[in-house]
Amino acid sequence: MKRWSMDGVGRERLRMEDAAPPTPGPGDVLVRIGSVSLNYRDLLVISGQMGAGLAFPFSPGSDFAGEVIARGEGAQRFAVGDRVFAAYVPGWIDGRPLGSAAEPYGRSMGGPLPGVLAELVALPESWLVKAPGSLDDAQASTLPIAGVTAWYTLVEKGGLMAGQTVLVQGTGGVALFGVQIACAHGARVVVTSSDDAKLARAKALGADIGINRLQGDWARAVVDATDGHGADHILELAGGPNLAKSVEAAAVDGRIYVIGVIEGLDLSASVVPVLYKQVNLHGILVGPRRVAEDFVRAVDTLNLKPVIDRRYPFEALPEALAHLERGPFGKIVIDVIR
Amino acid sequence: MKRWSMDGVGRERLRMEDAAPPTPGPGDVLVRIGSVSLNYRDLLVISGQMGAGLAFPFSPGSDFAGEVIARGEGAQRFAVGDRVFAAYVPGWIDGRPLGSAAEPYGRSMGGPLPGVLAELVALPESWLVKAPGSLDDAQASTLPIAGVTAWYTLVEKGGLMAGQTVLVQGTGGVALFGVQIACAHGARVVVTSSDDAKLARAKALGADIGINRLQGDWARAVVDATDGHGADHILELAGGPNLAKSVEAAAVDGRIYVIGVIEGLDLSASVVPVLYKQVNLHGILVGPRRVAEDFVRAVDTLNLKPVIDRRYPFEALPEALAHLERGPFGKIVIDVIR
Amino acid sequence: MKRWSMDGVGRERLRMEDAAPPTPGPGDVLVRIGSVSLNYRDLLVISGQMGAGLAFPFSPGSDFAGEVIARGEGAQRFAVGDRVFAAYVPGWIDGRPLGSAAEPYGRSMGGPLPGVLAELVALPESWLVKAPGSLDDAQASTLPIAGVTAWYTLVEKGGLMAGQTVLVQGTGGVALFGVQIACAHGARVVVTSSDDAKLARAKALGADIGINRLQGDWARAVVDATDGHGADHILELAGGPNLAKSVEAAAVDGRIYVIGVIEGLDLSASVVPVLYKQVNLHGILVGPRRVAEDFVRAVDTLNLKPVIDRRYPFEALPEALAHLERGPFGKIVIDVIR
Amino acid sequence: MKRWSMDGVGRERLRMEDAAPPTPGPGDVLVRIGSVSLNYRDLLVISGQMGAGLAFPFSPGSDFAGEVIARGEGAQRFAVGDRVFAAYVPGWIDGRPLGSAAEPYGRSMGGPLPGVLAELVALPESWLVKAPGSLDDAQASTLPIAGVTAWYTLVEKGGLMAGQTVLVQGTGGVALFGVQIACAHGARVVVTSSDDAKLARAKALGADIGINRLQGDWARAVVDATDGHGADHILELAGGPNLAKSVEAAAVDGRIYVIGVIEGLDLSASVVPVLYKQVNLHGILVGPRRVAEDFVRAVDTLNLKPVIDRRYPFEALPEALAHLERGPFGKIVIDVIR
Repeated sequence: MKRWSMDGVGRERLRMEDAAPPTPGPGDVLVRIGSVSLNYRDLLVISGQMGAGLAFPFSPGSDFAGEVIARGEGAQRFAVGDRVFAAYVPGWIDGRPLGSAAEPYGRSMGGPLPGVLAELVALPESWLVKAPGSLDDAQASTLPIAGVTAWYTLVEKGGLMAGQTVLVQGTGGVALFGVQIACAHGARVVVTSSDDAKLARAKALGADIGINRLQGDWARAVVDATDGHGADHILELAGGPNLAKSVEAAAVDGRIYVIGVIEGLDLSASVVPVLYKQVNLHGILVGPRRVAEDFVRAVDTLNLKPVIDRRYPFEALPEALAHLERGPFGKIVIDVIR
Repeated sequence: MKRWSMDGVGRERLRMEDAAPPTPGPGDVLVRIGSVSLNYRDLLVISGQMGAGLAFPFSPGSDFAGEVIARGEGAQRFAVGDRVFAAYVPGWIDGRPLGSAAEPYGRSMGGPLPGVLAELVALPESWLVKAPGSLDDAQASTLPIAGVTAWYTLVEKGGLMAGQTVLVQGTGGVALFGVQIACAHGARVVVTSSDDAKLARAKALGADIGINRLQGDWARAVVDATDGHGADHILELAGGPNLAKSVEAAAVDGRIYVIGVIEGLDLSASVVPVLYKQVNLHGILVGPRRVAEDFVRAVDTLNLKPVIDRRYPFEALPEALAHLERGPFGKIVIDVIR
Repeated sequence: MKRWSMDGVGRERLRMEDAAPPTPGPGDVLVRIGSVSLNYRDLLVISGQMGAGLAFPFSPGSDFAGEVIARGEGAQRFAVGDRVFAAYVPGWIDGRPLGSAAEPYGRSMGGPLPGVLAELVALPESWLVKAPGSLDDAQASTLPIAGVTAWYTLVEKGGLMAGQTVLVQGTGGVALFGVQIACAHGARVVVTSSDDAKLARAKALGADIGINRLQGDWARAVVDATDGHGADHILELAGGPNLAKSVEAAAVDGRIYVIGVIEGLDLSASVVPVLYKQVNLHGILVGPRRVAEDFVRAVDTLNLKPVIDRRYPFEALPEALAHLERGPFGKIVIDVIR
Repeated sequence: MKRWSMDGVGRERLRMEDAAPPTPGPGDVLVRIGSVSLNYRDLLVISGQMGAGLAFPFSPGSDFAGEVIARGEGAQRFAVGDRVFAAYVPGWIDGRPLGSAAEPYGRSMGGPLPGVLAELVALPESWLVKAPGSLDDAQASTLPIAGVTAWYTLVEKGGLMAGQTVLVQGTGGVALFGVQIACAHGARVVVTSSDDAKLARAKALGADIGINRLQGDWARAVVDATDGHGADHILELAGGPNLAKSVEAAAVDGRIYVIGVIEGLDLSASVVPVLYKQVNLHGILVGPRRVAEDFVRAVDTLNLKPVIDRRYPFEALPEALAHLERGPFGKIVIDVIR
């Protein structure tokens, strides 16, 4: 089989290579990968910014959809022929997150665990979720991080309800799932971006209001656009000092979900509005498998179609990563099966 | 009647003066104040650091307990003779906090509304809570901010349960109520302080572990003291850059309650542990009246006795404020009735 | 002014009479009633089945919308000219319900408190909610019981999310609001009725599945229609022995909201499915004022239009009550202003 | 090794027999059983009242504590030498319960799965929980059903807080854990029993009030004992028509946990108090593994010691079952290791 592999950090070390097909051990299934979607995280892993711990040769990539083609001893959750996608946090089945202060969770596919940019992978069956019948592999491959994060955040942590205002920052993968999920629950959706064309596309997707964050004080614009109420839910996808603006835009008892880190690794904000508005901040790390299963049910019920900016053939990984770095509208997908 | 009054900001402008007794309007009750407890907030108001909006002459003070001695037209929640204390956030009965992003709540007694350092006050009956039968006025006067904040935070927002670890920063009023409430729910309690003598007193009150924050890395000490688990609930009573240490000390899915601002008005922390531990931060502003009523029931059931560092006579307000500024162990109370 | 009044129980005692216009006391507002919507509860009150406690002469009716035309002393929540509707449970602002085991809440307009089938009423301003700008008085008059109950149940108590299945029993006022609210949150909606024509109309309103409850085992049909999953939320609008069927139809961890009593006052069900499916039952009594305010925001955001089966002129109350007794599709409204 | 086995239903078919020691498969551990505690459920299984599905020869018993003495391939959650106890619901790790309306969960050890009244068992490591360091095997063997059920109910589902009133029916295993857990959280505890001597023992354990249920109307006595408030949490351990009394005793917004079935399989109650008090009922089926882990932490923190009425040697199972049938005060334990 073919797979992408690197013998050290750096995008220039990526090579497509031939490898022996894996064999599923006890409790594993063998999956023929249909598609892999890329995440900003993949860029960080490949460039060595996610910390040590990679065993080389290393294959990147975490989010896939594909078909179960064989089962190891004792495996029974799936039948051969079932279409599946990855649960991003292996072992987090439901409820409370894993890990401890001394050892926070951090073992995911595509870093530090081996990744999935390959034609075949063998994985514990407990790491997989049955794919929605209404999506093809390219679409289903976008669910593991981007889709589940947006759903877990707004629906599970946030208890989103109709009539609330959801503020979405940017138009990347999590952001656009956030727009779609918020619209599906009857919320008002405000999107910020530095690109008017992307704002127009977000509004075509269902967003009610687009705010160009380069023009004036966007936090004030959010408050004004909600008649002073503020945003009930904020997907904080920039991070760093942007948090201070998110706090300004938040409603009383509003929730800010800290997800993205593009603008910096040090959060900062004034305490006064945090206190007076009783703002809630939540660090988010995708979500458990049960939540992915709920989301699948909703995808089928809503007939929700993930936004894919562009699909690339398997051998075009470098071009796909370059596109990802430029900032796509939604997701970038690699088609592994030709 | 006597009352404390100031004709401008600054502690030196405080004067005890004679005033006409107030008359309760429709829906009001007239209360003979027994005791007033002081809060750090009073220092900020008196010195003009809480912003504009004071109408001079102005009486400071928000937290009192006393006796209903007359009722205005239509008042029926209390009988004459009932002992009551203040609900700190007038109008917040239960559930969601009041206000909006454009106009966050900020109308409390003792700033900007007139305060209660007086022998008599007339107030809407809806602003009051029936005092616990097991406490005298001096003790009951400590409940409105310090007691209700600690209870609302740990019990209502936090859902505190036995076996969890609660980290309390310092030994002020909210902190020691936190220790007592956490102990009453079977939690393990860790207290930090820069004063070994205060740590010893906190342990005598029920805390399991005392950590001198001047000696080494207290956040690491918390993690070690919990076998790597971290603290499930953290009363962040310092603020500013201290938040970064609180984030380090937090358990996975831990909750940090932002309450105090002594160390600074700009919160900051690294985003990485916020994400990996999925930390939750909550800005806290006391709590609604129904929560105060729950707390009263618990005070009576538990026979919980607030920790009063020292009681001062009515005329000794300046000395009491000076004590407050030095940092008491628990609460400072002014006895209004001699 | 005109009002409907009765000098004893029984529908035949209802008379339209002239009365002196009321005067708003301190904290009251005077409302010119636009419309009153009827509830099954009104039939019970008028016929004397809601227990003693009515002071004759008595005006029935609880749910109205109208315009504030004057304010009593101190009233400030509304301006003259504001359009308002009734908060059905006076005094329940937010959060925990009122009352105690010894004295459960029971003081509502239209029984035992005086009702609103009149051209003018004077009421405490705290009993009112600002009407949605997108509804006229006839539509807004349907919100106090039917609309708020459905919203409180599904959204506030139930945390309804997209992809879940909601089972609605019948096609009365609460039921059809339930259909609309569930659809607005992306849920699948199953409606049961004994009338195929009403099922067809419910589907036209957005319901996914209609089940004629007279044909076969409807509980099994619900389980089958959800591929064995069962219903996540069940509006139990029949009561009595019907609860046993609702328990059968419930999903694991499903929620059954006990609201209606048309089929009996004694609930019964087998304990085995309650245990094995860990079913949750919730007795529902409308909802607090803050929830009504949330619902208003959602009504405007969603452009949700209440389903009114028929509007009657003020003098046609007897015909309206007869229609109500036959079982309307949605709500029956009395237009007070001609 | 020795084990208890039956070749058909009926207590008279139980025989102690010799059997080959089991071998742990992939992912399994081999446990040397120290103690097994009995549950009312065991009587039902042995007598054939739990439905079909037993494969004979069959060993009863579900709740054990013991020591890991060997690990199968890939097993890594426990080390040899670790002391463990059973997670009663295999596969329920955390969060939402398992199963569906069509196939509710029902696969537990000791019926229909093979039970644990044996000197050795081999089990998937995921079915086990590390035992509290503060308990011996006899004590730890009482946790899987009785302890976890009481904790899950009051703490996880109920969010028990200090000052609330908890009503516990009877003095069996779940009941006495309920008393201990409620006391540890600062609640007031009311116990009902038909045996004054048991009431006295329950009060010695920490209960505040004992009510003999044969003397007068116990539901009214509960309301009176709480000054009209009613019970916030009710462990419904009798079932059947007793539910009607529990509803009477419940506070407004009170929670009734349906757990026991001794008095009947058909729940019934009047709907009126369910509506007016907005009562919540919850069917309970033990709890997930993560909850057991929380409880272990609390047991160690609180130094909570389970109440064991009597311990029997391994060969005295018949006498132990007879004692169980008579109704012990707390738990009956079989010491497997002599």
